[in-house]
Amino acid sequence: MNLPPHLSVQDGHLFIGEHDTVRLAEEYGTPLYVTDEGRVRARYREYRDALSAHYKPVLVLYAAKANGNSALLRVFADEGAGADVFSPGELELALRAGMEPSHLLFNGSSKSRNDLRLAIERGIRVTLDSMDELRAIDEVAGTLGKEAFVSFRVNPALDVPTHPKIATGLASSKFGIPHERVPDAYRAALEADHVRPVGIHCHIGSQILALDPFIEAARVMVRIAGELVRMGVVLEFIDLGGGLGIPYRHDEDRAPTPREYADAVMPVFVDGMTALGIRPALWVEPGRSLVADSTVLLTRVNSTKDAHRRFVNVDAGFNQLVRPAMYGSYHEIVVANHADAPLESTCTVAGPICESGDLLAEDRPLPAVTEGDLLAILDAGAYGFSMASQYNARPRAAELLVRGPDRAPMRRAETVDDLVATQLTPPWL
Amino acid sequence: MNLPPHLSVQDGHLFIGEHDTVRLAEEYGTPLYVTDEGRVRARYREYRDALSAHYKPVLVLYAAKANGNSALLRVFADEGAGADVFSPGELELALRAGMEPSHLLFNGSSKSRNDLRLAIERGIRVTLDSMDELRAIDEVAGTLGKEAFVSFRVNPALDVPTHPKIATGLASSKFGIPHERVPDAYRAALEADHVRPVGIHCHIGSQILALDPFIEAARVMVRIAGELVRMGVVLEFIDLGGGLGIPYRHDEDRAPTPREYADAVMPVFVDGMTALGIRPALWVEPGRSLVADSTVLLTRVNSTKDAHRRFVNVDAGFNQLVRPAMYGSYHEIVVANHADAPLESTCTVAGPICESGDLLAEDRPLPAVTEGDLLAILDAGAYGFSMASQYNARPRAAELLVRGPDRAPMRRAETVDDLVATQLTPPWL
Repeated sequence: MNLPPHLSVQDGHLFIGEHDTVRLAEEYGTPLYVTDEGRVRARYREYRDALSAHYKPVLVLYAAKANGNSALLRVFADEGAGADVFSPGELELALRAGMEPSHLLFNGSSKSRNDLRLAIERGIRVTLDSMDELRAIDEVAGTLGKEAFVSFRVNPALDVPTHPKIATGLASSKFGIPHERVPDAYRAALEADHVRPVGIHCHIGSQILALDPFIEAARVMVRIAGELVRMGVVLEFIDLGGGLGIPYRHDEDRAPTPREYADAVMPVFVDGMTALGIRPALWVEPGRSLVADSTVLLTRVNSTKDAHRRFVNVDAGFNQLVRPAMYGSYHEIVVANHADAPLESTCTVAGPICESGDLLAEDRPLPAVTEGDLLAILDAGAYGFSMASQYNARPRAAELLVRGPDRAPMRRAETVDDLVATQLTPPWL
Repeated sequence: MNLPPHLSVQDGHLFIGEHDTVRLAEEYGTPLYVTDEGRVRARYREYRDALSAHYKPVLVLYAAKANGNSALLRVFADEGAGADVFSPGELELALRAGMEPSHLLFNGSSKSRNDLRLAIERGIRVTLDSMDELRAIDEVAGTLGKEAFVSFRVNPALDVPTHPKIATGLASSKFGIPHERVPDAYRAALEADHVRPVGIHCHIGSQILALDPFIEAARVMVRIAGELVRMGVVLEFIDLGGGLGIPYRHDEDRAPTPREYADAVMPVFVDGMTALGIRPALWVEPGRSLVADSTVLLTRVNSTKDAHRRFVNVDAGFNQLVRPAMYGSYHEIVVANHADAPLESTCTVAGPICESGDLLAEDRPLPAVTEGDLLAILDAGAYGFSMASQYNARPRAAELLVRGPDRAPMRRAETVDDLVATQLTPPWL
């Protein structure tokens, strides 16, 4: 199986960076998420450098929802990145991690007035998703005696080849202003008393492996930017969103590199800006493509069973990694303690959750596997822990960060006490 | 809309028991789960009485995964119920809530040796799911110098009309021993040194609205019980599992009552036991049908938007209630502060999560709705909070329990600090 550069097989064991996953699992227990910091930094720099080679200024806003651990937010802050934040929680955590308020964009289709107040008070730009939100933020800013700096999210009505639940640029999606109504939205923003439109935003979906949709979205954004400029909007930034996919099927999928993405999209963008005679900052919002392959989820085999299929029962299920159960997603699996053994049989890897859909992989060729073996679920760094639950009263896994020869937990494993930490007992019980 | 007896509309407001949901939302904030304790007790008693009218002894084991709040576990313990526990966490929490070890059954298809040790030490019966687990528990019990009391889960290979992800009795499901191999499993258990088979278990799925599958499963279990008795197994209990559905579509679905369930299934069971001349305890494991309709999820409208559809954007999404996004589930929605207003338009109710699939309802006729209105998502008591996540760095909702004129939080709302409570900072960051 093709492996990214930070994963390797040494003496039959899967290594992440300099670390033997078999020893990490023994030391820290399972299930265990392990993330390679160097890989995250390398991917970020690939993006920044590829885009900057075409245009400046560029700001990469990490899509914090992909993996919100504060250690990763600190890594991105240290690199000079910003963040696409989608909730007051993500906003707060990005600031705590040391990110500049000017490097954040508060996105989202459903914000409360409290959310809007928080963003204005902290000096953070807000992407508006509806005319209701424009009215609300104008009123909130007025009450605060401040000005709100905003963009609108454009719904480009593009049909993008990805899972329908993450195809956010469809005409029918809940996100954004239909592109034909965007000029009216900016006109209303220009007329509002306490709002200044300073940017424009779009995001067409997630896990996209083709470049054409990004090129098409850039064309739409350039066209709309032209309309806004003629209307008198001073654009400080144009945010093209994220959405670049990764090759979850290592030997079959082909994902564009950040350089290929930049080489495809940037000519459209640069030509557009040159023609308009403006030089706003280019913002992009990658998430998955920055962090997904940095991380493996280690899980221990509890038992095997030959029933109507061959089952390998492990200690992580959709409580720890929901993507296979929720989206039918594919993740490569390596038997970490026999990583170079020949494939032997077709196995269904099942978690401990009480649902038939709690399968991490179906009918997957694997080497011989028995109780006590260690499986590594690859590409678990995006939408892994961030979507985890405590379903079936199962504590969530620890997260370990490795960097060169060093390793340290960036989150301890939960315990049963953590499950009830916020519970209260009504006085009559 | 048909409402269960604990929900009512008074002066245009939705009430739960004696409590105005509009006032509860103002007092405790949103999103907010509100559970009626009396409704839970009433449903439990319906089950117990309906089954006991046919046969004794009967034990209702609450399927703790449906809603694991300790307050509810205490209510069930107070009623004399047991629990179907599916993890060491559920086992521990059921004991802490005051349940008798003899009233618990530790189920599950993927248990570690530590899990098995815990059950043996606490004197809790274990349902085995594979021959691997039989070998493991025999060894663990031997090491402890104890005997393990076990059942096997029978896979009856029934094709039940429900969602495939929760149809747990299919031949291809990860659960159980194929029914034709069950006698061999018990033979091996009888021969094992530190194991005593004392029961038999099955569970055919969840949210089942027909009675025939339950009758068929009871027939399979009676037949297998006969084989086991002739083999010399002394059956202390026969567990028919749970799975009874609820009418999520209040005006269209028809769900059997516990009495209808008992009247359909018990004759098969009673006749079978009489013919065999044995009188094991009858165990059943309802979850959803005990707690689902006890609870509403209150969520505030942040904004509305007429795009290609009419969107109502609220402050709860699939972070708080994942069923609609994960399974396409239907939940009735009441505009809690205009509960008797006429239907006005077709709305899609969208949460604040950054995924197109974050919709609580699609194209649903609703009364006029605007910013600040309060929606009640009905039937949110099962697989609601228990499957919640902190995705998009959104703290999980509070849970409130009401009983007669009283009300008290059984879980406080999380804060941003709770999101990072288990995080650690690697020394180099």
